[in-house]
Amino acid sequence: MEYFPLVLVGFGNVGKALAQLLLDKKEEINSRYAVDYAVTGIFTGSHGAVVDVTGIDVQKALNAERLEDIQGVKPAGSIDEFIALSGARVLFESIPVNYQDGQPAVDILSQALKKGLHAISANKGPVVHAFDELNALAEAGRVRYFFESAVMDGAPVFGVFRETLPGLNLLSFEGVLNSTTNVILTRMERGDSFDDAVRYTQQIGLAESDPSGDIDGWDAAVKVAALCMVLMGVKLTPQQVLRKGIRSISGDDIRRARSEGKRWKLVCRAQKLGQTVSAVVKPEMVPPTSPFFSVEDSTSIVCFRTDILEELCLVEGNPGPRTTAYGMMADFLNAVR
Amino acid sequence: MEYFPLVLVGFGNVGKALAQLLLDKKEEINSRYAVDYAVTGIFTGSHGAVVDVTGIDVQKALNAERLEDIQGVKPAGSIDEFIALSGARVLFESIPVNYQDGQPAVDILSQALKKGLHAISANKGPVVHAFDELNALAEAGRVRYFFESAVMDGAPVFGVFRETLPGLNLLSFEGVLNSTTNVILTRMERGDSFDDAVRYTQQIGLAESDPSGDIDGWDAAVKVAALCMVLMGVKLTPQQVLRKGIRSISGDDIRRARSEGKRWKLVCRAQKLGQTVSAVVKPEMVPPTSPFFSVEDSTSIVCFRTDILEELCLVEGNPGPRTTAYGMMADFLNAVR
Repeated sequence: MEYFPLVLVGFGNVGKALAQLLLDKKEEINSRYAVDYAVTGIFTGSHGAVVDVTGIDVQKALNAERLEDIQGVKPAGSIDEFIALSGARVLFESIPVNYQDGQPAVDILSQALKKGLHAISANKGPVVHAFDELNALAEAGRVRYFFESAVMDGAPVFGVFRETLPGLNLLSFEGVLNSTTNVILTRMERGDSFDDAVRYTQQIGLAESDPSGDIDGWDAAVKVAALCMVLMGVKLTPQQVLRKGIRSISGDDIRRARSEGKRWKLVCRAQKLGQTVSAVVKPEMVPPTSPFFSVEDSTSIVCFRTDILEELCLVEGNPGPRTTAYGMMADFLNAVR
Repeated sequence: MEYFPLVLVGFGNVGKALAQLLLDKKEEINSRYAVDYAVTGIFTGSHGAVVDVTGIDVQKALNAERLEDIQGVKPAGSIDEFIALSGARVLFESIPVNYQDGQPAVDILSQALKKGLHAISANKGPVVHAFDELNALAEAGRVRYFFESAVMDGAPVFGVFRETLPGLNLLSFEGVLNSTTNVILTRMERGDSFDDAVRYTQQIGLAESDPSGDIDGWDAAVKVAALCMVLMGVKLTPQQVLRKGIRSISGDDIRRARSEGKRWKLVCRAQKLGQTVSAVVKPEMVPPTSPFFSVEDSTSIVCFRTDILEELCLVEGNPGPRTTAYGMMADFLNAVR
């Protein structure tokens, strides 16, 4: 049995779901993979931090109002000091995404990798803004920088290429990658106004209080850029993705699509052209013969076209914080097994 | 650069596509994986066999009427002798499937594994009839028995669980797994009679001269049994799958489905119940909101339900001998890299 002290940076919906999953799966992982672990540190932006090298009582941390309330050292300082105190071998990062420059997640992951920790991230920002740099640090330190949950939660969109499809070249892909807009469009088909549908996605915790990142297609564009970076090896900024959101889709548009037997989807497309990529995010009406037609509510899909496999699609139904957390747990096990 | 002499057992559509793919991808695989190879033997049931430890001219073998016509030793005897003469480290098997007992493929793969070769198979029969035995031989010899192409051709249905989804437990799955029946049903929607549609699948080389293995659901049942064996760890014979084929679907049935906005699909379902599995293959009418609705012609799909990910589907569009061959090439690279 090999033992791994773990730290969590970020303790929101995803961080908490990960903590719970690590509790739930401990015995199973012990016996199936001869891997044991304890959470020795939790670091948050505004709810404090705690370190206990003998292992934090995760159930208490999940129930606590503030991390200050639970037993352990309370590091006052930087992420560096936190990592050093914790003795961790793996860092899990799930802080809010920063579309502009990926900070502070990029720095946190860099620090972890430089100190010889595996860095597991659910964050799109660092993939888009610092993939080469973080990968180089991981290779230099003979550790892993994995980020399966950054796109399509627990569905292994990166892993399937990295681990199972050697010798393939990705030529293009298309998908429905943003859950919030897909829920909004599905609600509008059921009679909601655009504004009511947006409010609903905010109520269920899917959209932020400012929902423009989803509605205007930024989240989808960042995911497209992340897939292009990792799977095609082409740097593309989210700004370089031709982008049109769903703000202009009216109830009339929805009814017109229905009368033609179609549905509106915020479709992402990217195509490799030599050493560059042409990419676009925009609403499209799709017919029932499209694999996107049945992708409703928060379900997402991506279809890849490669030099050998003409079409390979992955669909993830009903994602949530626990499936995102699973992607991180899978990254951890794939990094160490 | 590590060098692997390879042998091909079976040189039909898939074997030839594999030979061609190994030619096409040689330089790319050399440079990406530091793996080099040569085909040192080809063995067929009725077109002879040839061995050349310095490497067979594969292009000539692809163009030859009979393997006797190309340069090399002509082994007269058993598969044992063939393997020994070839000096191979990897055996690729793509002979016709035997639903009853998986022979002679089981013996061929056993011989290869016992002699320390990786055994790569596109064959469902051995998975269903001898998975435990072949796996044990592989483990004992520290080699691999991989068979990605046995279900859904080049789509990594086995690899995605083995390599990317640790710590998950498969609870149930459903899918459209037989291409021939799906082409027949799609043709019938376009106006073909059942008999005409069957003849079409025979003309394009999809169905055999006796098409009952596909039409009566045996092929689908064997695939269900293979998935249950490998992904759920439950032994299930194809006979234990409740099975109804598509023979009874009439033109009237097709038109009735269309009038309701639905389509007929030969749907496979399996659900784990404790240590057993309940499995069924039968025609169903599916609505446009089902992910199966858009799966037409030879496209196939499988949707998995696990203890964490509620729904994860894989779709493979437009498969053919080259995608099946790719599954075998991927198995080879995954076995040795």
